[in-house]
Amino acid sequence: MQWVKVLGGVVGAAALLGLGIILGHFAIPKAANPPASSASAFQDLDPEILETVMGQLDASRIRENLRELSREPHLASSPQDEALVQLLLRRWQDPESGLDSAEASSYEVLLSFPSQEQPNHVAIVGPTGDILFSCRQSEENLTGEQGGPDVVPPYAAYAPPGTPQGLLVYANWGSEEDFKELQAQGIQLKGTIALTRYGGVGRGAKAVNAAKHEVAGVLVYTDPADINDGHSLPNETFPHSWHLPPSGVERGSYYEYFGDPLTPYLPANPSSFRLDPANASGFPPIPIQPIGFEDAKVLLCNLQGPSAPAAWQGALGCDYKLGPGFQPGGSSQADLHSPAAPSVEHTKLTPKSGQVNVSVHNRLELRNSSNVLGIIRGAVEPDRYVLYGNHRDSWVHGAVDPSSGTAVLLELSRVLGALLKKGIWRPRRSIVFASWGAEEFGLIGSTEFTEEFFSKLQERAVAYINVDISVFANATLRAQGTPPVQSVIFSAAKQVPAPGPGSLSVYDNWIRYFNRSSPVYGLVPSLGSLGSGSDYAPFIHFLGISSMDIAYTYDRSKTSARIYPTYHTAFDTFGYVDKFVDPGEDRVKSILRLGKDGLKTEAWPCLPLCRLQQPPGRGQDGGGTCSFGSVTAFSCLSMSVTTVRPSEASCRLPSSSSGPCWSTTASAWVRRPPDKRHGEACTPRAKMLAVPTGPLVTAVEKFEGAAVALGQHISALQKGTFDPLQVRMLNDQLMLLERAFLNPRAFPKQRYYSHVLWAPLNSFADTFPGLADACLRALNTDPGSAAWAEVQRQLSIVVVALEGAAATLRPVADL
Amino acid sequence: MQWVKVLGGVVGAAALLGLGIILGHFAIPKAANPPASSASAFQDLDPEILETVMGQLDASRIRENLRELSREPHLASSPQDEALVQLLLRRWQDPESGLDSAEASSYEVLLSFPSQEQPNHVAIVGPTGDILFSCRQSEENLTGEQGGPDVVPPYAAYAPPGTPQGLLVYANWGSEEDFKELQAQGIQLKGTIALTRYGGVGRGAKAVNAAKHEVAGVLVYTDPADINDGHSLPNETFPHSWHLPPSGVERGSYYEYFGDPLTPYLPANPSSFRLDPANASGFPPIPIQPIGFEDAKVLLCNLQGPSAPAAWQGALGCDYKLGPGFQPGGSSQADLHSPAAPSVEHTKLTPKSGQVNVSVHNRLELRNSSNVLGIIRGAVEPDRYVLYGNHRDSWVHGAVDPSSGTAVLLELSRVLGALLKKGIWRPRRSIVFASWGAEEFGLIGSTEFTEEFFSKLQERAVAYINVDISVFANATLRAQGTPPVQSVIFSAAKQVPAPGPGSLSVYDNWIRYFNRSSPVYGLVPSLGSLGSGSDYAPFIHFLGISSMDIAYTYDRSKTSARIYPTYHTAFDTFGYVDKFVDPGEDRVKSILRLGKDGLKTEAWPCLPLCRLQQPPGRGQDGGGTCSFGSVTAFSCLSMSVTTVRPSEASCRLPSSSSGPCWSTTASAWVRRPPDKRHGEACTPRAKMLAVPTGPLVTAVEKFEGAAVALGQHISALQKGTFDPLQVRMLNDQLMLLERAFLNPRAFPKQRYYSHVLWAPLNSFADTFPGLADACLRALNTDPGSAAWAEVQRQLSIVVVALEGAAATLRPVADL
Repeated sequence: MQWVKVLGGVVGAAALLGLGIILGHFAIPKAANPPASSASAFQDLDPEILETVMGQLDASRIRENLRELSREPHLASSPQDEALVQLLLRRWQDPESGLDSAEASSYEVLLSFPSQEQPNHVAIVGPTGDILFSCRQSEENLTGEQGGPDVVPPYAAYAPPGTPQGLLVYANWGSEEDFKELQAQGIQLKGTIALTRYGGVGRGAKAVNAAKHEVAGVLVYTDPADINDGHSLPNETFPHSWHLPPSGVERGSYYEYFGDPLTPYLPANPSSFRLDPANASGFPPIPIQPIGFEDAKVLLCNLQGPSAPAAWQGALGCDYKLGPGFQPGGSSQADLHSPAAPSVEHTKLTPKSGQVNVSVHNRLELRNSSNVLGIIRGAVEPDRYVLYGNHRDSWVHGAVDPSSGTAVLLELSRVLGALLKKGIWRPRRSIVFASWGAEEFGLIGSTEFTEEFFSKLQERAVAYINVDISVFANATLRAQGTPPVQSVIFSAAKQVPAPGPGSLSVYDNWIRYFNRSSPVYGLVPSLGSLGSGSDYAPFIHFLGISSMDIAYTYDRSKTSARIYPTYHTAFDTFGYVDKFVDPGEDRVKSILRLGKDGLKTEAWPCLPLCRLQQPPGRGQDGGGTCSFGSVTAFSCLSMSVTTVRPSEASCRLPSSSSGPCWSTTASAWVRRPPDKRHGEACTPRAKMLAVPTGPLVTAVEKFEGAAVALGQHISALQKGTFDPLQVRMLNDQLMLLERAFLNPRAFPKQRYYSHVLWAPLNSFADTFPGLADACLRALNTDPGSAAWAEVQRQLSIVVVALEGAAATLRPVADL
Repeated sequence: MQWVKVLGGVVGAAALLGLGIILGHFAIPKAANPPASSASAFQDLDPEILETVMGQLDASRIRENLRELSREPHLASSPQDEALVQLLLRRWQDPESGLDSAEASSYEVLLSFPSQEQPNHVAIVGPTGDILFSCRQSEENLTGEQGGPDVVPPYAAYAPPGTPQGLLVYANWGSEEDFKELQAQGIQLKGTIALTRYGGVGRGAKAVNAAKHEVAGVLVYTDPADINDGHSLPNETFPHSWHLPPSGVERGSYYEYFGDPLTPYLPANPSSFRLDPANASGFPPIPIQPIGFEDAKVLLCNLQGPSAPAAWQGALGCDYKLGPGFQPGGSSQADLHSPAAPSVEHTKLTPKSGQVNVSVHNRLELRNSSNVLGIIRGAVEPDRYVLYGNHRDSWVHGAVDPSSGTAVLLELSRVLGALLKKGIWRPRRSIVFASWGAEEFGLIGSTEFTEEFFSKLQERAVAYINVDISVFANATLRAQGTPPVQSVIFSAAKQVPAPGPGSLSVYDNWIRYFNRSSPVYGLVPSLGSLGSGSDYAPFIHFLGISSMDIAYTYDRSKTSARIYPTYHTAFDTFGYVDKFVDPGEDRVKSILRLGKDGLKTEAWPCLPLCRLQQPPGRGQDGGGTCSFGSVTAFSCLSMSVTTVRPSEASCRLPSSSSGPCWSTTASAWVRRPPDKRHGEACTPRAKMLAVPTGPLVTAVEKFEGAAVALGQHISALQKGTFDPLQVRMLNDQLMLLERAFLNPRAFPKQRYYSHVLWAPLNSFADTFPGLADACLRALNTDPGSAAWAEVQRQLSIVVVALEGAAATLRPVADL
């Protein structure tokens, strides 16, 4: 298919982007050691050094990194995972191309594994206990890489052990609404096994929702409609294309929160206090097991009962019915013979008598999982950290997830390390490279790290850059982040050519896929919100550190795939990437041939902190002013203010999941809900109850006013005499702005979430999530209820945060 | 009496101390405006400027300030309080001697007042409802200042209205133990009125404890044994001495927490969300009313029943009995005629029939209360704040509390402001002077301020200096603070002569009254812990800002007075201070005659941040090194580490209330309890249950190691080339050290308290309060209980805080 045509250099482009972001952020003094006088340490990005760096980035090394990283399955805490820890340490401690220092630190965390002695098992069982049909216990070994003891069989991590058996029902995504629909259709749910498909709601939520209806066990499969654009035949799928083979099963963590389940808010050091696992919350309440669509087809296409709603139908080639229980056996044989599932056993189902047995034998185990941290010490401000992190562990080989990210991370760190070791480069601030452990189980390594160093990180971290999967697909950049990082990404994207023919930049290409209309800047790429899907979550939500997550991804007009097809399966291998995701280096080379003219210093990406340009004639003794880049960056902050400013029809950075940009304003908030799920009735109700939104409007105006004034202050600084302390003070204001929105008491029941603007709460509202959530809960209560009081409390929390943020931006000697 | 002999200059000495603390902290460039180059802005304390400042401090102005401030009663939010707001604004906005800027900000807070229409009333009522005896409704007008509508009648702020009536019992302090004792003695408490005396436990706790035993109402009085060293006769008390007259009544807030009761964690702006007062917690559960000892004598000396324990006896001149109810009337006539209470009405009490009626008609009212903030902009680091605060509101005239503090504050700000306006001085960092409103109702003004600016203050505040009452008495300095401020106070105290004859410094005098043995420094003055008694509480406990509270106070060997006798009464007037607390200026003048030799720069007090000394020959272009003072200051931090290091027999700064220094160590913690109230059984029990304290010892060692290494780093810095950014980075490490001990999730049920080391929790343990509290609660539970799990959780919280603090001190490019 045309859209699947894979262009070379996507990974290389990702590397360049990451590089640009890091380099753009740091002044590059020519001397490796900080000069004696701090004044002379202030220098700007040196195009020659930049060109050197660019020239040394080697696409073939990225490819070899990927091959090495994904050679063996490296499940968190496995010997292969530990071997990669050693690989990272060797690279980062290399005398020729290593960093200033690198070390591994280990946490003792609670992981969940299937039993080797008693494999998890799903079967159709007849009335006399005979097994009528058994689901596969492992994926088909199509390339010789899906077998062997190191390929963990498909399972739902943290699902409790148990062997429920009951009539099967089909429950679509397994959302609350889905179970309500089944109930509305008169389907008796108690004691049943619910077959659900991946998507719609989180993995763990399927079991939580099911348990509320006394469902005994849950199965999850990936429908070809959701992942393969409907393709399900063996010759249409991997290894013949990048589509998921019929036996492929998505693994995953079913834990509701993130971080080590036994040590919330505490680092999982061996001596740390641990909850009794029986008292830990967030695990699925009932057994749940994932299966492939090959097996799901046998189950689903044999169900009896009413037809499922049209929106619940998938691409298994039959009419999806709701159950409970199977239709008379004879009638389903045709389906069982479908060419999509040639290996399915022929089985005769007895009308209504066949029950599904789900045998889950998962075990919780305390395991050692390591993070690896490598540091380049900053020349001028070593106490300001830019963190660049990627997880290391995978479910199986994990070539795309996460090794595509790690391969880039290693090449970036090699090039920078080599310059460092040669004594020709050192960044202004410290760079911390991180390889996180046990991300797949719930962002565990990164969360424990933030718990261990919360105070220091809150005080000193400039930003956290996350790359998980670097390349999902080749169509366009996809970025998520908070407002302070937007201009960084924009600037980087403008300077890097998009992969593929033509002369579009990544930025121009991006804007074709994701865009929104900004009243100030016109059409701009749209940046997504940070949810809690990767290791940025503890940084932004727990510590309030400005974060971004970047990747290359799909053309959504050409595929409806929920994610790349072999995600979390044993088919995500080097061969898969090499054949279907990033087959060559030619285009990487074409990108690397960028000349000096293509690297305009002032347009290179930078975080919204002052980059210091050396003024003409000042020479080594330096000085400099805040660059235009800083003003632009600051404008971005200011733009984030106009989120709630009606006159400018402004919008917050829209969530990529919520589609086009919507604008919400403080006054609009009472006119219409910011999100469908927020409930149409909420806003007029709030208005009726006289929830006062005037203070919100005032707070926004204060924030805007302070932002504009700070912009003027920056302009004045640029015209005046250079003062390194003044620059530091300004940078502190900008760095700590995101922290002003952190309130650990705003949502006390939400573990870790304390960011007043970005917490991904239940309502999924894109702005003021606490307010939206409270409103959602208050909707059907009386005006004097505690729930409406909470709406007012949340409004005050937002107002105080905005006013605190304004205070942060105001001249520092004002109170 | 000899010990009451009041020496001049105490207030002046307090002013000098405060001045020293502020000046010592700041380098003083000669130019009023920051020089263009930041490097040249680094200069050290200039002895000439210092001498100028000292010479301009004017004791007579302090006296006049006091007269003006205490001329009228200025209860929080009253017109007189608002008039003082204007006075402060005039002073701080004065073109000749004002600050850079000053403004008042108002909060709408919930205060509590007695009804003017229905005065609170306490009476003995006969069986037919006839009033046998009435307590006074106001204090006796002894000096013409105790009358008039602006003198608020004695009341218990936030006590609920109600008119309980019942038999009287005597309940000593009203502690939990006291009520248990009454119960043990077989006294039926249900429906009684409990007479308690001030002291022992907090005001509000008396009503809380009483209500648990179904007591209907509570009375509180001040026993002459506790306040007057037993003296109670009119001719022994004010205006004949500084003792409390028989009609004097201590007012006070009976609210359990601090801050505006309706807006916890939110600033009490008019638009802020407010709790329904019915849902607000922390108010006394039953009516409570304070009375004078003149009236208390009538009640107490007529009680029947068993004699109270010896420890419960006071100085009213009779045997205190427990009740319930009164003894036959005739027998008590002699007592009623005691000369201590000449105005007591003669009344005939009927045996067992006389009940006490307590009529409380307090009202909660939303009132506007103002803080006044004045700022001196820092020349070099305007974004680093040293806050110096004092409350303004008083119960009546409040000459001692708080006007003695405000009088000093105003003189200090005048002198500094005048130098500022003349263009000859500007501090390195910003100084924020604060006059807090509504402190008497529960630290309301200061708390709302910290709630409004929590993010900015946490990021930028170097320290908070609190002066509430500046002079309780004249014997010795009394200081409370966290370790980072200790050396500041020590240095200041060493340079200021003690008031009175002789040549002792404040330090040498102090050491005679409060001292402890330091393994490193020998005998040193002992610094008390910060509880929650004044406006420092929100700064240290909510925001983790290093704080101190200083005052001059009593010789405890010469008086057992709980506090100065007219505390919170209508007798705390200018005349009282002028006659008994600070009668003259002679000694102030002698202090002001300090010459240049007396002001050794390196010995002047400074906060534990690097003071930069100008190295020889560097001239205006500056440079400098961290002074010895910084090393000393840092040693103090290091010493705070050794809190828990057995080998050094070190001790945490002892609480002034807990007497001599005790040393506790991590290993000692499991051997013996750090505090009696902690429970003797707790430690062996913890040991038995194998609560692992090894990690605590390790964490302490890490902290010590990091502290020692940082000390070496400071030494190295002093020898190297001066770099302003390096100094800033070092200062940031030190400033933020206290913040590393803040954990808002450590004690989620404790409002505001989140400092892992200093939170004043129930156990009143001086170290690791969370751990001690948890242990106290776990004592009588089973080994597997949730309470013992909490002990282990608290241990981990302490370990993580110590390790986080160590990480803050380690080289900034280490992780």
